Amino acid sequence: MANIKNVLFIMADQLRADHLSCYGHPHLQTTHMDRLASRGVLFEQAFVNSGVCGPSRMSYYTGRYPSTHGATWNRVPLSISEVTLGEYLKSRDLDLVLAGKTHVMPDKQGLERLQIDGQTELGTLLRQGGFEQIDRYDGHHEPGVESGYPAFLRAHGYDSPDPWTDFVIAVQDEQGQVRSGWHMRNVNYPSRVKEEHSETAYMTDCAMDYMKSAGDKPWVMHLSYVKPHWPYVAPAPYHAMYTPEQCLPVRRTAQEKEHAHPVLNAYRMQEESVSFSDEECVNRVRPAYQGLIKQLDDHLGRLFGYMESTGLMDNTLVIITADHGDLLGDHWLGEKELFYDVVQRVPLIIYDPSEKANATRGRRESRLVESVDIVPTILSALNMDIPAHRIEGRALQPLLHGESVQWRDCVFSELDYSYREARLLLGKETDECRAWSVRTDRWRYVYWSAERAQLFDLQNDPDEFHDLGEHPDYEAVRLQMKLRLLDWFAGLKRRITVTEEEVATQTHKYKQAGVFYGQW
Amino acid sequence: MANIKNVLFIMADQLRADHLSCYGHPHLQTTHMDRLASRGVLFEQAFVNSGVCGPSRMSYYTGRYPSTHGATWNRVPLSISEVTLGEYLKSRDLDLVLAGKTHVMPDKQGLERLQIDGQTELGTLLRQGGFEQIDRYDGHHEPGVESGYPAFLRAHGYDSPDPWTDFVIAVQDEQGQVRSGWHMRNVNYPSRVKEEHSETAYMTDCAMDYMKSAGDKPWVMHLSYVKPHWPYVAPAPYHAMYTPEQCLPVRRTAQEKEHAHPVLNAYRMQEESVSFSDEECVNRVRPAYQGLIKQLDDHLGRLFGYMESTGLMDNTLVIITADHGDLLGDHWLGEKELFYDVVQRVPLIIYDPSEKANATRGRRESRLVESVDIVPTILSALNMDIPAHRIEGRALQPLLHGESVQWRDCVFSELDYSYREARLLLGKETDECRAWSVRTDRWRYVYWSAERAQLFDLQNDPDEFHDLGEHPDYEAVRLQMKLRLLDWFAGLKRRITVTEEEVATQTHKYKQAGVFYGQW
Repeated sequence: MANIKNVLFIMADQLRADHLSCYGHPHLQTTHMDRLASRGVLFEQAFVNSGVCGPSRMSYYTGRYPSTHGATWNRVPLSISEVTLGEYLKSRDLDLVLAGKTHVMPDKQGLERLQIDGQTELGTLLRQGGFEQIDRYDGHHEPGVESGYPAFLRAHGYDSPDPWTDFVIAVQDEQGQVRSGWHMRNVNYPSRVKEEHSETAYMTDCAMDYMKSAGDKPWVMHLSYVKPHWPYVAPAPYHAMYTPEQCLPVRRTAQEKEHAHPVLNAYRMQEESVSFSDEECVNRVRPAYQGLIKQLDDHLGRLFGYMESTGLMDNTLVIITADHGDLLGDHWLGEKELFYDVVQRVPLIIYDPSEKANATRGRRESRLVESVDIVPTILSALNMDIPAHRIEGRALQPLLHGESVQWRDCVFSELDYSYREARLLLGKETDECRAWSVRTDRWRYVYWSAERAQLFDLQNDPDEFHDLGEHPDYEAVRLQMKLRLLDWFAGLKRRITVTEEEVATQTHKYKQAGVFYGQW
Repeated sequence: MANIKNVLFIMADQLRADHLSCYGHPHLQTTHMDRLASRGVLFEQAFVNSGVCGPSRMSYYTGRYPSTHGATWNRVPLSISEVTLGEYLKSRDLDLVLAGKTHVMPDKQGLERLQIDGQTELGTLLRQGGFEQIDRYDGHHEPGVESGYPAFLRAHGYDSPDPWTDFVIAVQDEQGQVRSGWHMRNVNYPSRVKEEHSETAYMTDCAMDYMKSAGDKPWVMHLSYVKPHWPYVAPAPYHAMYTPEQCLPVRRTAQEKEHAHPVLNAYRMQEESVSFSDEECVNRVRPAYQGLIKQLDDHLGRLFGYMESTGLMDNTLVIITADHGDLLGDHWLGEKELFYDVVQRVPLIIYDPSEKANATRGRRESRLVESVDIVPTILSALNMDIPAHRIEGRALQPLLHGESVQWRDCVFSELDYSYREARLLLGKETDECRAWSVRTDRWRYVYWSAERAQLFDLQNDPDEFHDLGEHPDYEAVRLQMKLRLLDWFAGLKRRITVTEEEVATQTHKYKQAGVFYGQW
């Protein structure tokens, strides 16, 4: 085992922790991810800082909470005043290369306001959230630069101006009729692309091609799969690999809908929740979702095999995680957002090739970690300084190296539902739709702007069926959680124009400069 | 009375509200400010958002709290991602012209990071905090561009490479010996400049010259005096206009120092507090401080006379306020910072020439207002939209026009003492030195990071002598205040890359774009 030369930061989109066999799934064998966990550290309590792609990813890419980086939902651009991992790495002449999805929305207003040409090297970097793009591919979203994927598909005979819509997420039924995978009723049929031409296969190929071409040059790569995110269309044979009986049972009770929280009520009226409230939808989507994960695991196996054979496993830090989970009908809800563990808890496996990590290989780590920890962990792995005036997360090396350390006892997550139908259903203004959650080992507390709080006792109610947000016996717990949230707000990093070191150096500088205020 | 064409936003530096006769001073007659109050609205409960120049001013210039704009102390630059009043006005082809002090520190790192040439029009505007400088003059600080004041002094015979040090803040004693006004023991002597060559006279002349030159062109001017800020050197005859008996009595009790709050203890060990703990210092500084205020008032009288005679009083909104007060030995403390009303409460007089304001002329308004209200008030006076995704204050027009309106019942202020000796005395790191205060009509509550809270009952203890921060009877009050602070944190404006209108327009946009997530 050598020192760390490269970093491979793998992200899956919308992947629940409990869908990996190493996290306890009884039927879905994620052999290759499990194997990586056996060689590294599996974080049993890894949480995202927002349960939706955009803000969660911006926390992964900046090391800052959504309350600080400001990209509070999918359509909110990351301000160009935010510094991303890619920009930090530039100071070491390292590129952060991208294969796949980022969900970065360019801050056009910011660029225009500061008269920065978006086509220059700087402008491009800012528009792309600090990534150098091997191939940016956000799936159904408008990417900044056209991915090579549509051309790849056309070159392989998928003849269409929009091969994604016509082949990747299209299926063919028994009668030979083409149907859209946007309609979840169709995801029992296979994708119209062959497995080797699917999004997951293509992006794995991109990553491996890059590794091959890099030679001796060190690299930091974000390999960011769009799957198992909806549309839940899997290629054969993965579309039919699991039966509903091999899926995790849907977690919901009739009682959950009684006296429910107003915002949850509104979310349950949104189309995805109405669809998933039907058992038939759950039973059709979950097998396809599992198939997509199995496929992802197989490609990771292919990738890790390549890395093993070329010696890259000896000098590459590998991180596997996800931007959030998926409700899949749990709690009478679909998709993501909100604060249940099935959305907030994600797989996190970190394989550190260095000798220091030998003490923890195969460890299951139960301390609480968050998305904001990833940037400082990568910087630390590369022996780079962590800019303390901006970074709100903590490097995970003490946990990876088995060092004794004082650790946090709660994590935080946020929601901005101002873009959602729920806002309209509740008759709220766009600046009234915020929520923050505090999660400890024991409790999940949610503070809602202008709405009552939620509280779940995870020890006695691990499925989060009983909202204790108004229960009189839990007033003290709610208050304690609320005060933790206040302390957290007070600790956010706001003073971004000077480093902590500069502040320390300048303490007393008035006096050094010959300015004697207050002298008698 | 016509519509509002111009805005004159006057600021004094370190001016306590209780030092104006219209705010109750029994001996110091501020005739001209009083007269403006009789024609406008006097705000009896106007508070700054930080008790120190830099962060307070940045709140005045951005309409945002220090927690949001990030310039938490004097030496912290305002991030170029922040939009200032001057930039808002540019969209209407209006310049925000400056005569005097801003305390804006250029965000050199931000400019460099985004490769913005600080010498271009944009770079200059950003470096200057959005101001077009008639004459920037920060007094003892390093201004961005050399003020005309030193040259003016030399042209009037004050022959020195540094006429400020050698004449403006220098005094001459009975023996003809020159002494420095940095030493407060010397401020019973007059400045070595004539009154008509003093800072206050010079800056008033600059403002009047600009008004004369502007002709019919509308303008928004920030006339920002460096006085009565230390060094407390007044020119004759103002240096000797008041006796200690004509000054407000120092407010302090021996008991205040018993079981005092740790941060206050540390501040009391700083040089300015040690100096002011001596009665002799108080008795020497306060008369000079009052003289400087009297002088300021006389020059405002001169300015208002000119504006009256030229018709400018008919179409100019006039605001008089200060960036914070001055402790002057109260509570055994000197200078500013911390959360006593003598620091946090400032004069605020607004004269609105429009007919709508006729209903309130001479009104004493007791509702709580804050520095962040000034930007929206100026934009509103000019019939400009208030960018709701950034501005955290409220336009004061409903109060100026006597309209019925729901108003706030508390105001907020902040402190970052990481640059101060107090931090070293307490052995703290640079990111551990924050405090926030909540002030209602009745209470002043202070939340300190990692230290106990403070609480004062302003009804029963208007002088703030009795800190109830640990008193068991007030636990419920402290908790209520703490929860207000949490709600305030939750309401700060973080989503700055999109407007509220854009969010509203884009609600449901996925669906309009043909993306049907969650459809069965």
